[in-house]
Amino acid sequence: MAMEGYRGFLGLLVSALLVGFLSVIFVLVWVLHYREGLGWDGGALEFNWHPVLAVTGFVFIQGIAIIAYRLPWTWKCSKFLMKSIHAGLNAVAAVLAIISVVAVFDYHNVRSIPHMYSLHSWVGLTVVILYVQQLILGFFIFLLPWAPLSLRAVIMPIHVYSGLLLFAAVIATVLMGVTEKLFFVLKNPSYHSFPPEGVFTNALGLLILIYGALIFWIVTRPQWKRPTEPGSILLQPNGGADGMDGAIAISSGRSPDAADTELSSEGTARKRTLGLEDAGQRSTM
Amino acid sequence: MAMEGYRGFLGLLVSALLVGFLSVIFVLVWVLHYREGLGWDGGALEFNWHPVLAVTGFVFIQGIAIIAYRLPWTWKCSKFLMKSIHAGLNAVAAVLAIISVVAVFDYHNVRSIPHMYSLHSWVGLTVVILYVQQLILGFFIFLLPWAPLSLRAVIMPIHVYSGLLLFAAVIATVLMGVTEKLFFVLKNPSYHSFPPEGVFTNALGLLILIYGALIFWIVTRPQWKRPTEPGSILLQPNGGADGMDGAIAISSGRSPDAADTELSSEGTARKRTLGLEDAGQRSTM
Repeated sequence: MAMEGYRGFLGLLVSALLVGFLSVIFVLVWVLHYREGLGWDGGALEFNWHPVLAVTGFVFIQGIAIIAYRLPWTWKCSKFLMKSIHAGLNAVAAVLAIISVVAVFDYHNVRSIPHMYSLHSWVGLTVVILYVQQLILGFFIFLLPWAPLSLRAVIMPIHVYSGLLLFAAVIATVLMGVTEKLFFVLKNPSYHSFPPEGVFTNALGLLILIYGALIFWIVTRPQWKRPTEPGSILLQPNGGADGMDGAIAISSGRSPDAADTELSSEGTARKRTLGLEDAGQRSTM
Repeated sequence: MAMEGYRGFLGLLVSALLVGFLSVIFVLVWVLHYREGLGWDGGALEFNWHPVLAVTGFVFIQGIAIIAYRLPWTWKCSKFLMKSIHAGLNAVAAVLAIISVVAVFDYHNVRSIPHMYSLHSWVGLTVVILYVQQLILGFFIFLLPWAPLSLRAVIMPIHVYSGLLLFAAVIATVLMGVTEKLFFVLKNPSYHSFPPEGVFTNALGLLILIYGALIFWIVTRPQWKRPTEPGSILLQPNGGADGMDGAIAISSGRSPDAADTELSSEGTARKRTLGLEDAGQRSTM
């Protein structure tokens, strides 16, 4: 990676971490300062774990898991180690998400509030279930060594797509949750009279959106993908089973007059997304 | 495109159109059957244009605009025509989005309800402004013939990224809007007692999410990108200024053992995302 590209990456990474960290601080300030605080009492204190764990685990930690392969200083680490970190972070996020759901169900049970009536709950529970399924499938297909390369090849694009879709759906769910909660609790003074809690928690929503936007930018830059391992060769298109890192690359321009504009414009063009056909041609050069 | 890939594309396109169309039907049933209907009276009838125009224009039509370049039967049309269609659909979406915002402001004014206090309104207005900005920038940089290729090359990845991010943010905004409205109006019977309107409108929210997921899948398949024009050659990497179609391709696998798995798995591997470096090498072959 050229030094300029590296600095750009660092700047964006630091921004993402800062915005993500700030989101966690904001959700803590929300429940500790504006709401009742935290506890596991079946009441409001327990409910408050719901936003805290959702933002910390399901948004912040999931975002880090998504860009784990992008960190240049990990490119010399083994692929297996990086997969373990990616899976581990996602597992932590899943556990926190599940606890956050348990907190709400508990709270509803104690207060005899019906479950699962809002759009927030429908999307939220679906996303938690699909996230756990994604984690289990990823563990068996990509982390364990037994899945054939052909299966990995079929599943990887779906894994990458699902991961980003779920991340976006989680953020949408959090924004619905914030909306719901503020209309519930801000009665006197009302949400529409701009009380400090309303403005502050709206800002939390914006921070979470900006965090998602930064993660999405970082993960879709082709020049920040984990490079091909040195020593691996193009002559063996089916030679190994440990080489997929799953990434979305924004590639603009298929016509040669503008081929891979995002690469050329960054000045870090590299042989990146060669199809097998190209790999085959290269191997005969 | 191989016949199998073409059928897969058609199946997904028809699904997306069906789900998108169903979303429009659902939002119409919502306001016409469950709510007060449509009108321009400064009251509830006027407010109801807000969800109708947001879903029809800002979600459904924007989604079509995003995948306009993917329709295989348009690949023989000129790039300028396709750009005009892409820009035209986005312009229609922008106009409908703006009218939908006007409807709400009008409604608030008549009833002396404060503006811009909710997270939905903050994100929604930001998204409308950025969408119009994206439209204007796209018009001047990509549709008009005067922008230099180097500028287009720098802006295109940002244009593609912003477009998808805005589409996702619009959907998140709509989901917040649905949440807000249902908690407002479902008092007796309450939203939490599962009234038909609540269940029906939750289903509308799910349809919109599924529509977004389908559009995101279609636009990120590299094999469904508009192909290089026949006759254009790799020897002229800077030869033209009309060749960028801006696409996101999910490319998984940078190691050669799994290079471009999504292409190989589809059996439609093509020379797609060649960097300029590769184009240069090829030209010397």
